[in-house]
Amino acid sequence: MTFETDLKTIIRTIPDYPKKGIMFRDITTLLGDARAFRRAVDELVQPFAGRKIDQVAGMEARGFILGGAVAHQLSAGFIPIRKKGKLPHLTVSVAYSLEYGVDEMEMHDDAVKSGEKVVLVDDLIATGGTAEGAVKLLRQKGADIVAACFVVDLPELGGAQKIRDLGVPVRSLIAFEGH
Amino acid sequence: MTFETDLKTIIRTIPDYPKKGIMFRDITTLLGDARAFRRAVDELVQPFAGRKIDQVAGMEARGFILGGAVAHQLSAGFIPIRKKGKLPHLTVSVAYSLEYGVDEMEMHDDAVKSGEKVVLVDDLIATGGTAEGAVKLLRQKGADIVAACFVVDLPELGGAQKIRDLGVPVRSLIAFEGH
Repeated sequence: MTFETDLKTIIRTIPDYPKKGIMFRDITTLLGDARAFRRAVDELVQPFAGRKIDQVAGMEARGFILGGAVAHQLSAGFIPIRKKGKLPHLTVSVAYSLEYGVDEMEMHDDAVKSGEKVVLVDDLIATGGTAEGAVKLLRQKGADIVAACFVVDLPELGGAQKIRDLGVPVRSLIAFEGH
Repeated sequence: MTFETDLKTIIRTIPDYPKKGIMFRDITTLLGDARAFRRAVDELVQPFAGRKIDQVAGMEARGFILGGAVAHQLSAGFIPIRKKGKLPHLTVSVAYSLEYGVDEMEMHDDAVKSGEKVVLVDDLIATGGTAEGAVKLLRQKGADIVAACFVVDLPELGGAQKIRDLGVPVRSLIAFEGH
């Protein structure tokens, strides 16, 4: 069994969630399997072994779990990117696209220094609206975004390509066809 | 400079947030400092070195960051405990006390097996309402809660004592007086 098959098998698919026609990829079954969780984190960080990464940025809320583990493994700091109104200090914000409409995400204004090397982490990339917003937010403050890493890619939705078009290398461990 | 002083200095205090009279302890400055973040995680897991921990449970949202890192460091799985309505599969839920009123938290029904050894992680313990809810939720499914770990304790608010009274050892790295 290949690594990809192995991780794919352990991700739970929930049909018609949150609405009809969507196959929801539930990574909590992967997180709850100690061996699979460790393997996913170690695979995510593998290209950065021996490189200096200053910060890992994770997107609320599932991106915090993997991002926290990746930051620790890389001996980097962690930057939380949150929904509007959740951070207590001075923030910078950016609008990002959802399936219907737009929302705003924020990070602390002093979360990253210009020129710092940042790896962006989330559990899944679909249309890429959230990741695109995070890239813009980090670049506002001069971050050098080394890569964006995801456990799951849904390539038909075009998100990974959108991030590559911004000049950010994308790493994902497994891909599911369809939505 | 002692370890406690060092970590304390790096936590940002925001007066009168989210409302007048509250001294908000902002751990994002600790998370963003690679050395302090690593040190906090390593100190949190230190009592469990060499022991078999099956799962780390983290509370949404800041508990996900530290919990993800702690789970990875202990080679354990990770259980997300979330606000109501955020988990896609069958859940169990419990009501918990907020400063004003109550809310509900959930975890997946199959997140933990009876008898599994679980460490609970959050960034801060104040009145302990969230941690108490998490303990009840995990015990509903037969978890053996080995400890509850926090970076910051506000001992005057009594939360740590409340958790100890439930028979769960509490570990915190630093304490602040007042709220």
